[in-house]
Amino acid sequence: MTVTYTHEVANARLSGFSSLLVRWKGSVYKLFYKEFLIFITLYTILTVVYRALLHGESKVYFEKLCLQFQSYTDLIPISFVLGFYVTLIVGRWWSQLEHLPFPDSIMLLIGANVHGNDDRGQVTRRTLMRYINMAQVLMYRCVSTAVYKRFPTMEHVVAAGIMTKSEHSVYENVKTENLKYWVPFMWFTNLLSKLRQEGRIYDDMTYKVILEELNKYRVHCGSLVNYDWVSVPLVYTQVVTVAVYMFFVSTLLSRQYLDPDMNYSGHEVDLYVPIFTICQFFFYMGWLKVAEQLINPFGEDDDDFEVNWCIDRNLEISMLAVDQMYSKHPKLERDLYWG
Amino acid sequence: MTVTYTHEVANARLSGFSSLLVRWKGSVYKLFYKEFLIFITLYTILTVVYRALLHGESKVYFEKLCLQFQSYTDLIPISFVLGFYVTLIVGRWWSQLEHLPFPDSIMLLIGANVHGNDDRGQVTRRTLMRYINMAQVLMYRCVSTAVYKRFPTMEHVVAAGIMTKSEHSVYENVKTENLKYWVPFMWFTNLLSKLRQEGRIYDDMTYKVILEELNKYRVHCGSLVNYDWVSVPLVYTQVVTVAVYMFFVSTLLSRQYLDPDMNYSGHEVDLYVPIFTICQFFFYMGWLKVAEQLINPFGEDDDDFEVNWCIDRNLEISMLAVDQMYSKHPKLERDLYWG
Amino acid sequence: MTVTYTHEVANARLSGFSSLLVRWKGSVYKLFYKEFLIFITLYTILTVVYRALLHGESKVYFEKLCLQFQSYTDLIPISFVLGFYVTLIVGRWWSQLEHLPFPDSIMLLIGANVHGNDDRGQVTRRTLMRYINMAQVLMYRCVSTAVYKRFPTMEHVVAAGIMTKSEHSVYENVKTENLKYWVPFMWFTNLLSKLRQEGRIYDDMTYKVILEELNKYRVHCGSLVNYDWVSVPLVYTQVVTVAVYMFFVSTLLSRQYLDPDMNYSGHEVDLYVPIFTICQFFFYMGWLKVAEQLINPFGEDDDDFEVNWCIDRNLEISMLAVDQMYSKHPKLERDLYWG
Amino acid sequence: MTVTYTHEVANARLSGFSSLLVRWKGSVYKLFYKEFLIFITLYTILTVVYRALLHGESKVYFEKLCLQFQSYTDLIPISFVLGFYVTLIVGRWWSQLEHLPFPDSIMLLIGANVHGNDDRGQVTRRTLMRYINMAQVLMYRCVSTAVYKRFPTMEHVVAAGIMTKSEHSVYENVKTENLKYWVPFMWFTNLLSKLRQEGRIYDDMTYKVILEELNKYRVHCGSLVNYDWVSVPLVYTQVVTVAVYMFFVSTLLSRQYLDPDMNYSGHEVDLYVPIFTICQFFFYMGWLKVAEQLINPFGEDDDDFEVNWCIDRNLEISMLAVDQMYSKHPKLERDLYWG
Amino acid sequence: MTVTYTHEVANARLSGFSSLLVRWKGSVYKLFYKEFLIFITLYTILTVVYRALLHGESKVYFEKLCLQFQSYTDLIPISFVLGFYVTLIVGRWWSQLEHLPFPDSIMLLIGANVHGNDDRGQVTRRTLMRYINMAQVLMYRCVSTAVYKRFPTMEHVVAAGIMTKSEHSVYENVKTENLKYWVPFMWFTNLLSKLRQEGRIYDDMTYKVILEELNKYRVHCGSLVNYDWVSVPLVYTQVVTVAVYMFFVSTLLSRQYLDPDMNYSGHEVDLYVPIFTICQFFFYMGWLKVAEQLINPFGEDDDDFEVNWCIDRNLEISMLAVDQMYSKHPKLERDLYWG
Repeated sequence: MTVTYTHEVANARLSGFSSLLVRWKGSVYKLFYKEFLIFITLYTILTVVYRALLHGESKVYFEKLCLQFQSYTDLIPISFVLGFYVTLIVGRWWSQLEHLPFPDSIMLLIGANVHGNDDRGQVTRRTLMRYINMAQVLMYRCVSTAVYKRFPTMEHVVAAGIMTKSEHSVYENVKTENLKYWVPFMWFTNLLSKLRQEGRIYDDMTYKVILEELNKYRVHCGSLVNYDWVSVPLVYTQVVTVAVYMFFVSTLLSRQYLDPDMNYSGHEVDLYVPIFTICQFFFYMGWLKVAEQLINPFGEDDDDFEVNWCIDRNLEISMLAVDQMYSKHPKLERDLYWG
Repeated sequence: MTVTYTHEVANARLSGFSSLLVRWKGSVYKLFYKEFLIFITLYTILTVVYRALLHGESKVYFEKLCLQFQSYTDLIPISFVLGFYVTLIVGRWWSQLEHLPFPDSIMLLIGANVHGNDDRGQVTRRTLMRYINMAQVLMYRCVSTAVYKRFPTMEHVVAAGIMTKSEHSVYENVKTENLKYWVPFMWFTNLLSKLRQEGRIYDDMTYKVILEELNKYRVHCGSLVNYDWVSVPLVYTQVVTVAVYMFFVSTLLSRQYLDPDMNYSGHEVDLYVPIFTICQFFFYMGWLKVAEQLINPFGEDDDDFEVNWCIDRNLEISMLAVDQMYSKHPKLERDLYWG
Repeated sequence: MTVTYTHEVANARLSGFSSLLVRWKGSVYKLFYKEFLIFITLYTILTVVYRALLHGESKVYFEKLCLQFQSYTDLIPISFVLGFYVTLIVGRWWSQLEHLPFPDSIMLLIGANVHGNDDRGQVTRRTLMRYINMAQVLMYRCVSTAVYKRFPTMEHVVAAGIMTKSEHSVYENVKTENLKYWVPFMWFTNLLSKLRQEGRIYDDMTYKVILEELNKYRVHCGSLVNYDWVSVPLVYTQVVTVAVYMFFVSTLLSRQYLDPDMNYSGHEVDLYVPIFTICQFFFYMGWLKVAEQLINPFGEDDDDFEVNWCIDRNLEISMLAVDQMYSKHPKLERDLYWG
Repeated sequence: MTVTYTHEVANARLSGFSSLLVRWKGSVYKLFYKEFLIFITLYTILTVVYRALLHGESKVYFEKLCLQFQSYTDLIPISFVLGFYVTLIVGRWWSQLEHLPFPDSIMLLIGANVHGNDDRGQVTRRTLMRYINMAQVLMYRCVSTAVYKRFPTMEHVVAAGIMTKSEHSVYENVKTENLKYWVPFMWFTNLLSKLRQEGRIYDDMTYKVILEELNKYRVHCGSLVNYDWVSVPLVYTQVVTVAVYMFFVSTLLSRQYLDPDMNYSGHEVDLYVPIFTICQFFFYMGWLKVAEQLINPFGEDDDDFEVNWCIDRNLEISMLAVDQMYSKHPKLERDLYWG
Repeated sequence: MTVTYTHEVANARLSGFSSLLVRWKGSVYKLFYKEFLIFITLYTILTVVYRALLHGESKVYFEKLCLQFQSYTDLIPISFVLGFYVTLIVGRWWSQLEHLPFPDSIMLLIGANVHGNDDRGQVTRRTLMRYINMAQVLMYRCVSTAVYKRFPTMEHVVAAGIMTKSEHSVYENVKTENLKYWVPFMWFTNLLSKLRQEGRIYDDMTYKVILEELNKYRVHCGSLVNYDWVSVPLVYTQVVTVAVYMFFVSTLLSRQYLDPDMNYSGHEVDLYVPIFTICQFFFYMGWLKVAEQLINPFGEDDDDFEVNWCIDRNLEISMLAVDQMYSKHPKLERDLYWG
């Protein structure tokens, strides 16, 4: 479920964004609290060991170790790597949103230009729109785990009324190892070609404009498949992940509060709770979680695209538009500002 | 109301941008003065406590605490996070501006190509443009709080003359849970199809070019709905907000002026007013406010898009263009440079 | 006047860019020398005060103040803020250049496809191109101070031969508070529609392709109006400006050369002239001036677009192309590589 | 083989990305383990020399050398250079993916609009699609080492059934030193023109829309040739590579653990294994390897595009679509939601 | 000559990019060795002066000066400025590559759709393509120094067979101060219009699609002229150049090895050769040279676009395609996978 919150911050005002901090759903807390518990447990164990178990030379050695880790911790170029990486991931994520296929343009054209009030006209318009929606569902089954769960087999697609049984058997007869989400597009163009010859589409121009919109729609579907096929290079993701994890492993030692009596510089006060390390955990792990959530927006994260809702919406709207609303518009009349 | 100021800085000159610093409307001061008052109050309280109430050991402990906070404050990677985040928000904001739907292209086509000097011709052209404007209003009602306030119910849309009563009842009969801003588009294409058949549009090419422009317009509307639907991931906003807030909470301690007599390094002078922290507050909080103001440009901030003005402008201009100016142009005559 | 210099650095060679450093027109020196004089004067005053007037304790206090300012100066995140801000401004600036409307595409179409060697044919082609140029001028009058100075009233537009008197009176009769740069476009499409009906345009396809090019041209004009309407958020500009100004105010103190005899670390040598601060002034103020110059490229800076030249060029070229060159091309003959 | 892994991280969850760290194929470990072995060997040699062979003054000199290198190592601006460079490379890489030519749009049009159930119709449709695939193969042979290995000579292209023998001889007769991947496009348009004249394409509009799709496809091919022709400037790659290599050469000295008894600051503990330098090696060398892998995505790296698979897929699908599926679609029938 | 090297690094492997380091042509060494010699000479002179000539107090003063310069050198924000600037330049450079006009799309259309096997048909097709190439050459003469050297006068263009003598005289008769690269486009559309009327182009659609491709081609030419007209603002280039030069001037002092006997911190070892400063020179000057080479890609640098080769290639290919290959395609036959 996409988390929509911009209406709450439509106006900048006192404490503007701060009201967003108390949300749980889709929040950074929900995403990383488990990692945080692990981290804080490990930190506590080390603290207890240091304070309760170590004495004399081993204590001093531990302290020196902490100091050395401290001087090296900041060598890890974590904010730079994260900044560039997250920008890349956010770019891909938004681009995928822009490529979600919506049938609205095609349905406006079909509804107004594939003529015929008879039964065949009605069936044709509905079938054309069903092909469009079918291609979408077939494509989403490949890229989205949520849709795949909803339609684990082609039988589920048939049961949902998106494909008829006879279509299913024709579909199964198209033999190829490759993805077949383009098959309904082929049916669409073949059917459209017939409709033009029958004269249900009145002119070549309209025929062409429908073909063009179809191709735009197909390009959207193909793009999502491409995004699914080619991920952000694994190497990049690994480098970033290791950077963040190593940073926090090293802070386990480097951010221990050392005995103030030893007079180590920067260790004058013993606060017990590593406040700033927790802050850093919040920022860096939170930033990494942004990437983790967006790298595949077709999963079931709080912030992933509601693709199943899209499918339902598209099917409902497109049937409504080309069937009930076919050729209808309100009576023409003079408007308020006439004359 | 959008704040337009580039004319004042059209030419780079002495103190160029500095003249912009004394504006209040749309200014950073107006946006963050409340936060600033809170911050400075808290800071003052701590200062007073430190100077007046603390003595002996508790004073030294407080000082050590401040010093430790000081060494950690700069660990918060605030400018990096803010830089990347604000760049993202500004990109979205501009992209939304570019997707504001303007009916100008369609009105040029309707005005010159939907023929008929009779009453029906006039009604038709006006109605087509009203559909276009109606779709815009219906879409804006979903994404803009300012427009929603202006048209809280569909009755207000009818009262404003954007929809007629009979259209309203037809509109209500389209039963779906989903957004219905596309309904006027469907009416538009249906009506247009009839006009082509009646011969009021003279040829298929013009019919097609109007359909194409309609689809561009529809894509603009759909994009704004998408921007409204999918916000910048909440996680990212939370991470950035917390980073900035924590930074300033930590400066409450870390930027206290400590007793110069204690000879803490960097605390030789007691200025009472934390000038540089105020500067930093200005930069970082100001930067965050840029994001806060732009994250939803359809609110009522000083710098938000004047959508209500757009609606009025579009309705007026499009009626003017397709009605009074229909088929008219000045008398052709030789120009100044003839021959 | 745009400053074109890339030809001088077409080839990378010894001291490549350094030859650009001695230019005055459009140079950074010209842009910021006034600010620099103010800065250096203030700095000198403080230096003189410190060296000549202060003694004993007040001298020490001043020195401590300088040292403290020194430790804080680098807290101002100036290069980050500037980097992101200037990138944004440069992006907008180039995008505006790309949207400058040029009538070349339309003139190629009009010249070859609006037929008729008679007087009316000639008048028509010229008028169509004049409408195109007129819309451009009307739009530029709103966004460019240079063009506004050239055409302060509509009478000036008429006097320049861009609009005829009768057109002017028709134009004045279009009553609206909003911008009217679209009016000539409406005349254009109305006239074009008549020409198609008269048969001066031979087919629907050509009619359509001219309409499409017109819409591209109109979108360019509309985009420039949008860029003018919605500036970079004032808040962002204020934050950046204040950051830079505050930085240099603080360097007035923090970069004073202190008495080497006091043995302050980093103050062993007294150079009198703050070389590095001058360098920093050069970089940061120069960088800010880049933004200042580009934020409104329609002013009269050395580097602003030569819009008045564009207007003249477009009018001349388009008249030439559709009038003298109408329907003409050199005699066809075999070329050098024939056979 | 492209490494697809986003399905594994579709949902953000505990240890999300960490599961990716144990993969070998396409991993950063596989890419840089050889460099790492060299680095660690050199480091060990120096360590052994220092600890076992050096004594007295030479030992002290070595230590001072290390300390000096240490102070300079961080002058190398490695993360900045890498950040900007990798962003550039990733941008190019993705852009190349977006330009991979896929024949789907054309095949939908050919399959539905080049009519004729007879033998000639069938041959024609197959030949048109073969031309499209042939152009792709000819282009890939120039840009991809993997495809070049598969088709080292034109005879291999003929043997693979992508070109017939007679086509090959015609192809060889086109005499030019330049790339000839455009030749099949020329055949395509010539054949298409004939088909229109024969009436196998029913109308001019469809003819045009096929030509338009062909041009889009050709632009994709041309773009990939351009990417191959113009690399990222060699200078940039050299600067980045030298920066990274020099950094690690300097760490060989600067990150040696010095004798704790000497009391050099920051050398209190002797860990033997340079953990943090290994981490840095991981980040920076890993980041460089991202660039190395993506700079030419048409090689045979784990993460390169599977172009040979594309070729097979495109040929199979396009033959299937225009031949078996020609003019066919499932029987029209009422769908589940009828009425 | 463009330096193509990606094939050498198609696969990431041991020492991947390092093989690129030993190239001379197009290398960073070739670009900056002169600057380097100057820098190292100046450095040596200062070293010799310091070591041989200075004694006593003047020596100490020099050392203090060096130390002070050292503390200020890093205030110059060189990597930030360079990072943003080079990114801007690289973006422009690639964008210019993408706008190089190639006549392939137009030649495919002309070759298949401008009919006639007779002499006039042949002349027409060749002439149309010559106009396209002529416009390109006229445009390149304005933007490219390499092309200008090849065609210093219009007579050279005539001599190269790109323009005939009679065309030249017509061209000269078009009187305007402005660029005239659009004149051949005007001839093109005029001729095309005649061909449609003669019936050599069979239908309006094809006529339109050629006009559309022509406009795309023209936009490419116009864009290159724009890039030539409006450079990156001089101010920005100056700021960056001065930053880099000042940095290295200041390192002349700040990176001198001081007498280790003086015990200045960080000057324990005297290495004579300033290794790290040389590294920095390599990075920063190399980075600046990337910009210097790319700022005008139409010069004669190793990495500039081979525009003269483009001109030859385009002329040859387009003549070949519309003349010899006119209306020809291999015999249709069943392919390998038939049935």
